[in-house]
Amino acid sequence: MPHYTPPLRDMQFVMHELLDAAGVLKTLPRHAEVNRELMDQVMEEGGKFCAEELLPINLVGDVEGCKLSADGVVTTPKGFKQAYAKFVEGGWPGLACADTWGGQGLPHVMQTTMQEMMNATNQAWTMYPGLTHGAYAAIAHHGSDTLKARYLPMLVSGRWLGTMCLTEPHCGTDLGMLRSRAEPQADGSFRLTGTKIFISAGEHDLTENIIHLVLARLPDAPAGVKGISLFLVPKFIPNADNSLGPRNGIKCTRLENKMGIHGSATCEMTIEGAAGWMVGEPNRGLAAMFVMMNAARLGVGMQSLGLMEMAYQNSVAYARDRIQSRSLTGPKAPDKPADPIIVHPDVRRMLLTQRAYTEGCRALAYWVSLMIDEYENHPDADERKRIEAMVALLTPIVKAFLTDAGFECTSLGMQVFGGHGYIRENGMEQLVRDARINMIYEGTNTIQSLDLLGRKVLQNNGATLKAFGKLVYDLIEKEGTREDMAEFINPLADLGQKLEKLTTEIGMKAFGNQDEAGAAAVPYLRVVGHLVLSYLWARMARIALDKQNSGDDFYKAKLITARFYFAKLQPETASLIRVARSGAAPIMAMEEALF
Amino acid sequence: MPHYTPPLRDMQFVMHELLDAAGVLKTLPRHAEVNRELMDQVMEEGGKFCAEELLPINLVGDVEGCKLSADGVVTTPKGFKQAYAKFVEGGWPGLACADTWGGQGLPHVMQTTMQEMMNATNQAWTMYPGLTHGAYAAIAHHGSDTLKARYLPMLVSGRWLGTMCLTEPHCGTDLGMLRSRAEPQADGSFRLTGTKIFISAGEHDLTENIIHLVLARLPDAPAGVKGISLFLVPKFIPNADNSLGPRNGIKCTRLENKMGIHGSATCEMTIEGAAGWMVGEPNRGLAAMFVMMNAARLGVGMQSLGLMEMAYQNSVAYARDRIQSRSLTGPKAPDKPADPIIVHPDVRRMLLTQRAYTEGCRALAYWVSLMIDEYENHPDADERKRIEAMVALLTPIVKAFLTDAGFECTSLGMQVFGGHGYIRENGMEQLVRDARINMIYEGTNTIQSLDLLGRKVLQNNGATLKAFGKLVYDLIEKEGTREDMAEFINPLADLGQKLEKLTTEIGMKAFGNQDEAGAAAVPYLRVVGHLVLSYLWARMARIALDKQNSGDDFYKAKLITARFYFAKLQPETASLIRVARSGAAPIMAMEEALF
Repeated sequence: MPHYTPPLRDMQFVMHELLDAAGVLKTLPRHAEVNRELMDQVMEEGGKFCAEELLPINLVGDVEGCKLSADGVVTTPKGFKQAYAKFVEGGWPGLACADTWGGQGLPHVMQTTMQEMMNATNQAWTMYPGLTHGAYAAIAHHGSDTLKARYLPMLVSGRWLGTMCLTEPHCGTDLGMLRSRAEPQADGSFRLTGTKIFISAGEHDLTENIIHLVLARLPDAPAGVKGISLFLVPKFIPNADNSLGPRNGIKCTRLENKMGIHGSATCEMTIEGAAGWMVGEPNRGLAAMFVMMNAARLGVGMQSLGLMEMAYQNSVAYARDRIQSRSLTGPKAPDKPADPIIVHPDVRRMLLTQRAYTEGCRALAYWVSLMIDEYENHPDADERKRIEAMVALLTPIVKAFLTDAGFECTSLGMQVFGGHGYIRENGMEQLVRDARINMIYEGTNTIQSLDLLGRKVLQNNGATLKAFGKLVYDLIEKEGTREDMAEFINPLADLGQKLEKLTTEIGMKAFGNQDEAGAAAVPYLRVVGHLVLSYLWARMARIALDKQNSGDDFYKAKLITARFYFAKLQPETASLIRVARSGAAPIMAMEEALF
Repeated sequence: MPHYTPPLRDMQFVMHELLDAAGVLKTLPRHAEVNRELMDQVMEEGGKFCAEELLPINLVGDVEGCKLSADGVVTTPKGFKQAYAKFVEGGWPGLACADTWGGQGLPHVMQTTMQEMMNATNQAWTMYPGLTHGAYAAIAHHGSDTLKARYLPMLVSGRWLGTMCLTEPHCGTDLGMLRSRAEPQADGSFRLTGTKIFISAGEHDLTENIIHLVLARLPDAPAGVKGISLFLVPKFIPNADNSLGPRNGIKCTRLENKMGIHGSATCEMTIEGAAGWMVGEPNRGLAAMFVMMNAARLGVGMQSLGLMEMAYQNSVAYARDRIQSRSLTGPKAPDKPADPIIVHPDVRRMLLTQRAYTEGCRALAYWVSLMIDEYENHPDADERKRIEAMVALLTPIVKAFLTDAGFECTSLGMQVFGGHGYIRENGMEQLVRDARINMIYEGTNTIQSLDLLGRKVLQNNGATLKAFGKLVYDLIEKEGTREDMAEFINPLADLGQKLEKLTTEIGMKAFGNQDEAGAAAVPYLRVVGHLVLSYLWARMARIALDKQNSGDDFYKAKLITARFYFAKLQPETASLIRVARSGAAPIMAMEEALF
């Protein structure tokens, strides 16, 4: 079974040395009291919970999966319910929720570190509390005071869990097509009818009640996405004292049998005359839902980050332990019948690829999370707006780049194990199967790339991208005179210039033919992702350079990993740019009938 | 459930129009009578068998898997045994086996087409007869006349099946470490003892007897790979009339629970005093085994080729059928609530990537197979030698490049399905899980790359690579004057030159430090793979150009796919070359303790 050591040292490096999170939080009235010690303590405690409670039930959860009985009851794998009880007991559900509703009021960035470790040790389990954050956010931002007062304390305490019910059999990406209906009732509530699929945690035995957030149409709603409203539909309609009232008409009618995340109940939900209450404005459900979606997209990135760390740790351990063949440059362990496979260059390439992506993606994810705390709490409105735009730019990158990297890295981790990686009990292939869904749900990675290129870059004439470019430029200015930074600053500057040209070129072509944007979007997102990682790796390299002789080997390893990133991973952009520039014609030329 | 239409048109294109297989075979005395009609008939009949018998039991085989009872009996999934009986009835086991032993004596290239279709429809099932080809080849090439006469007819008829027993718990890649022992007996036989793992088809209920080919050491054997001998160890020791004699001491003591190919029994075999007979010379087992390995490596390539075709066909069908969102350039199906997703550029990118790799890899695989027929049967010894070297060069590419492409393409096929791709009953995720093992077994793809760069290129000073370069050069000379071929010939010529330089550079660096070869090998193999594919795509484009106005849309599609390959896939080499050139230092700099 895989092992897991919470990567506290690197988490702290990113948090304190790279981002100076405590310093940033000090500028935010709400979080001014959060200091480094508190942050370290939360990470440490969180890591303990994950390693001790979640990891031991990860493999068994995969093997057992969830079960649906004839009467619609879903049973989660052995140990899931007990672990959830401990999670609630520890006060983890409300970590970053407002203290108004009983939360601990800690910053999002702390929640993010916890999410990484939870997903590393058990992605399937983590989806139960994970989706609840979206439900919490939607109610907190858009719900009426009555809904907030009734539901938020129960979600924050973890006594109830929540879901997001969007997808229907005939529509996922294209929510404009959705058919679920909501009829207004005399008492201000609604009666909902419809079928939802792929509902994570739609039914389970972890909590006594489940609060569904459901997209549906009012009878007079306009067609398309502008006719969708959001409703809160509880499994049991609560009484005034939060005790459970009548069972509502929303039932799990099927569990999906999936490639991975077997421990997560993926439900078909049949809604038949269920009572619901509107969240937000009529026909503005998509906007309310997007509050959930952005959080969920970052959350999906965290799922892959966790899995990458897991794959790295375990493949390193295996590569140290497994002896096979001699080093090409002569025996390295002459006392043994063969050398540990970590001596072989290509094994190292597979390990360092995982490491460089994991550490780079961690820096990106924590940075974005910290910016969410800033834009939600900064005293200056302009600053809030500026940072919110940056988060909007980076969100599709966190989702798509991290989940692509997650699939690649877990697959590399498994490859290091050779044939033993393909065997279920070693736990490496589960990481690959679990990681694979992250490229699909909460908006496929294609959708993320269209969001980035179309909405976040071209629609505002690249203003936010330019703001990011300014950060890059400032770093180049600042570090450009240091000779020992040249190996990092030069490829960063070079990529920045190429991206600028590429963006202009695609923008001009797309002006004449929108398919040009559609054809370039996926490689474009990957190039931007590499620019962001290059920027962060250059900053991390600077810190490591300054401390390389501190006697702490951590900085030595960080520097070598930075060099590996620029030598072996970032060059991928050369091809990506060529592919992006080759345009839509080679893709659109094939008539549909000829496929 | 996925559907499958044998891709006969494209198979025939490669066979007849690209390779002129019938013309080549006419020059080989053994196959002079094989004509185009016969080939087409075999492919057509083979395709029917696969679509009708193997496809319907593929998904159920994945769900059911194999079962091991307490008394060591392995039960294959429902329908596997019946399908095998029909396979035998149809005379398929001995398709390419010598008629001396009851085979049909058809060329290897025909066997290859059948392998592709069998694996497309059911990789797990195909592994039962698949491994037998290796056993057949080892006995046919290295066995004594007695062994041949006793065992080959039974394997050729399909009445018995065979295995290859190489791996042990502590050694896979490094066979020099293997511990299984063989004690000579007075009657010329041997008594074998040891434990083998990951033995595909090690035990099953398809045939009454199983013929194991086992690597073991003689008591006086030297250490390492030069002390390994090969033994034939039957499950039941046959009587003179081929009826079953005593049960031999080789038993399945465990079935592995794997990521995929669940229908294939992956066995731990415990060998306790089993009777065996030596195949080939003492201590020369590895050489005899390599006859099996090369066939097996090409066979693994065929597994991925089949899965890629399957993923392509089904994701195209889904993309035509599924409606979701409007084309970026305005509605294409205004009568429907949304457009079929095949209108979206990135969906097309995913489909065309699969198509271009599948068709390019098919051309490569059939070409190599046809060359095997040539080197085994050509009347001229020099010609045999020349072609054998070319096959040796291309074998690791077929194994590694095709299986990497297979994983990428099945994953893309699944991605086209969105969330539905992750659901088991749709059959797409099974292709990904099945495809994943192909990158590992029969020598990991790292091992293939070391074989290519180290043994096949550097060890003979690039002589064979130059011979391949001559083919490329001849094509450039021949087609270089045609303006309409420039878009294919130019990137081919450019890549050829770059590979030449790269090879020299790596060779020089590796001369001083062998880790330089180890660090460059994986990207190097991929670059060579792209050169081979570029060469074949250029030749295919030439044929398609000449017939593009023939009224047969097949050529139009071929031309567009060729253009897609050069515009969107081949540019990957730009990055690969940069990565290969960046050398070993960024990989080797990290001390083991710092990982």
